[in-house]
Amino acid sequence: MSDPLPISFLSDFGLDDEFVGVVHGVIARIAPDVRVIDVTHGIARGDVRAGSLALMRAIQYLPEGVALAVVDPGVGTDRRAIAAETPWGYFVGPDNGLLSPAAAIVGGSVRAVTLENPELILPSSGATFDGRDRFAPAAAVLASGQASLDELGSVIPPDDLTPMVLPLPAVGESSVEGEAWWVDTFGNVQLNVGPDDLRELGVSEGQNVDVIVGPLKRRATWVRSYGDVEPGTPLLHVDSTGMLALAVRGGSGADFFVLRAGGQVVLRKP
Amino acid sequence: MSDPLPISFLSDFGLDDEFVGVVHGVIARIAPDVRVIDVTHGIARGDVRAGSLALMRAIQYLPEGVALAVVDPGVGTDRRAIAAETPWGYFVGPDNGLLSPAAAIVGGSVRAVTLENPELILPSSGATFDGRDRFAPAAAVLASGQASLDELGSVIPPDDLTPMVLPLPAVGESSVEGEAWWVDTFGNVQLNVGPDDLRELGVSEGQNVDVIVGPLKRRATWVRSYGDVEPGTPLLHVDSTGMLALAVRGGSGADFFVLRAGGQVVLRKP
Amino acid sequence: MSDPLPISFLSDFGLDDEFVGVVHGVIARIAPDVRVIDVTHGIARGDVRAGSLALMRAIQYLPEGVALAVVDPGVGTDRRAIAAETPWGYFVGPDNGLLSPAAAIVGGSVRAVTLENPELILPSSGATFDGRDRFAPAAAVLASGQASLDELGSVIPPDDLTPMVLPLPAVGESSVEGEAWWVDTFGNVQLNVGPDDLRELGVSEGQNVDVIVGPLKRRATWVRSYGDVEPGTPLLHVDSTGMLALAVRGGSGADFFVLRAGGQVVLRKP
Repeated sequence: MSDPLPISFLSDFGLDDEFVGVVHGVIARIAPDVRVIDVTHGIARGDVRAGSLALMRAIQYLPEGVALAVVDPGVGTDRRAIAAETPWGYFVGPDNGLLSPAAAIVGGSVRAVTLENPELILPSSGATFDGRDRFAPAAAVLASGQASLDELGSVIPPDDLTPMVLPLPAVGESSVEGEAWWVDTFGNVQLNVGPDDLRELGVSEGQNVDVIVGPLKRRATWVRSYGDVEPGTPLLHVDSTGMLALAVRGGSGADFFVLRAGGQVVLRKP
Repeated sequence: MSDPLPISFLSDFGLDDEFVGVVHGVIARIAPDVRVIDVTHGIARGDVRAGSLALMRAIQYLPEGVALAVVDPGVGTDRRAIAAETPWGYFVGPDNGLLSPAAAIVGGSVRAVTLENPELILPSSGATFDGRDRFAPAAAVLASGQASLDELGSVIPPDDLTPMVLPLPAVGESSVEGEAWWVDTFGNVQLNVGPDDLRELGVSEGQNVDVIVGPLKRRATWVRSYGDVEPGTPLLHVDSTGMLALAVRGGSGADFFVLRAGGQVVLRKP
Repeated sequence: MSDPLPISFLSDFGLDDEFVGVVHGVIARIAPDVRVIDVTHGIARGDVRAGSLALMRAIQYLPEGVALAVVDPGVGTDRRAIAAETPWGYFVGPDNGLLSPAAAIVGGSVRAVTLENPELILPSSGATFDGRDRFAPAAAVLASGQASLDELGSVIPPDDLTPMVLPLPAVGESSVEGEAWWVDTFGNVQLNVGPDDLRELGVSEGQNVDVIVGPLKRRATWVRSYGDVEPGTPLLHVDSTGMLALAVRGGSGADFFVLRAGGQVVLRKP
């Protein structure tokens, strides 16, 4: 048998309860030699879009293998549980769009199944912990090579998976209308706007941009990084995943620009 | 030497300080090949009962080996430090009832010792971090086979361990008086009431139940899972560990029913 | 090739975002057999001193190998990225004093380099995630033996590293002026005062001490541990790392003595 694949595990379970530990336990019981990397379990509860964005940002840095992702507000309903194969490896989770952006940027699904093999589902009195009963066993057998994708359930067309609709920015003559995608723990605000969108307005690095949030207008300079402005100064920069982000050196961009995830923002050439 | 056993580690240390990392470090220094699974470190500080319930819920999903559990408000007093052997494996922790429910459901302790071997206790200036100085070394040598249970200290009768007294529900003619055992991060409220307790009242799945908390009376339908009610609707269901739980689809059962862990609740046939 | 070294990883990344998981992923892609121990990621954001103290407290309990520490408010400025060799092993992180106290207590740096080898830096659109792009690859190749320290960049004098200035207590005739170094999750307040400082005043274990914080004067008994006082009672004791700490049995020393990290405190012989 070949080397086991690592599993990268993302969820909205938080770390206050034993949910994450139990999933690790189930994997270890089925596949003791499989390594599990915790991507994050701090996704806002039930926020499928936030989970899909985090997985998309992380995927190219995770070792090829199995991505197990569970942000699943539809558990206990008839939403499908799926596994998909991509050039990067396998994706396992609910079919609610969570997996789609990450799977797309590593080449897209080439095969997919619904998780319906009763031999690979833990018996349970309840129907609310598919992470433990259905997704963890599927990830464990795929990672350890104990089962092939086809053995997990019924084959479905790979392009039949639920997509995640991510809003695109609207680039106009003199402004870009965008949205905050993510506010990180440091208060940096990632936008759904890339550097090329801003260049279309004729703005380039080193220049100022007006940042309009509701009735509030602030100004920030587009710089390479924090070191290019004084402490306490707002800035716009290309962040570590290639998108534009609003920040304050040594402070919180979210507080300064009054932006939360999902908030609307207009970038305008002054 | 046989394969090392995995250690499953639960505590109330939280993740803000380096306590959990230091325990991992001590284990790795003594037994580099032993794998450690973090069950949770988010138990409310000093809440032995909550810790014992979490370990009990998790134990059957954890790989057989060593359970290292530290919720230990009596550290630095004369409470005993113990290790016990069960059919599942070893349990290591304070003798304050924390280990007892989990040990019981995997078959009970067959042998037990107090942790008193000075060669297996790290020298320390203080007396407040037994997780590092006493429990981690014991777990590490048991997991790696470097010492047998008897070598850890003095043998004590296995039924001499401190039990955890868990309140039982009072089943009457038309109502069950119970208690909230656990509120999880999603707001689901697990009760100390099982489905059979409710069936004794003549209530079965698909029927309504009155849920009385202090002066507040709410109604919930006993359903299989979230998908059986509309979003925003309260429900009663058998949860993933087999107990009855109050929930709101897409919301918080704890908020709706105004229940916290330890809160009293009456379920009544309408 | 010899056995890979373990990496002990400390940061202020928190666990809400995928930062920690991505660093684990980068290490696993470069060095799949290297084990990573998470020391803590709960350091207050950007608090280099708190990070340096946590690493210093933990280091002797961590397995010899690589210490990867990232509390880096100067990322994106011209602060140096470094790796240093000590008798314990390698330290990797920003040159802002974070690594210095821990490196000092394990024997000090004997060799050091700046991390400038472009082959060992991940290409990135941004300049704000050196933990991923620069520190993780350096730690991974050192741990796995894929590169020697000299191959990481330019050699610098080991005593050229930025020190961490930690305030010393001022011991007078009848009092010690000190500072709170750390408040842990249980509310224990570690001081920068050792037991010998107090003994210089003629105070020994078993005696009372006045604890003065601003206008507030409280009294505490210096005891061995919690078990020596009644529940709810304040105490002073030598903590698990050898420093004096203020605590309340079953309560919060921080709340009782109104102290936070960095707060000034005077201990006086009554």
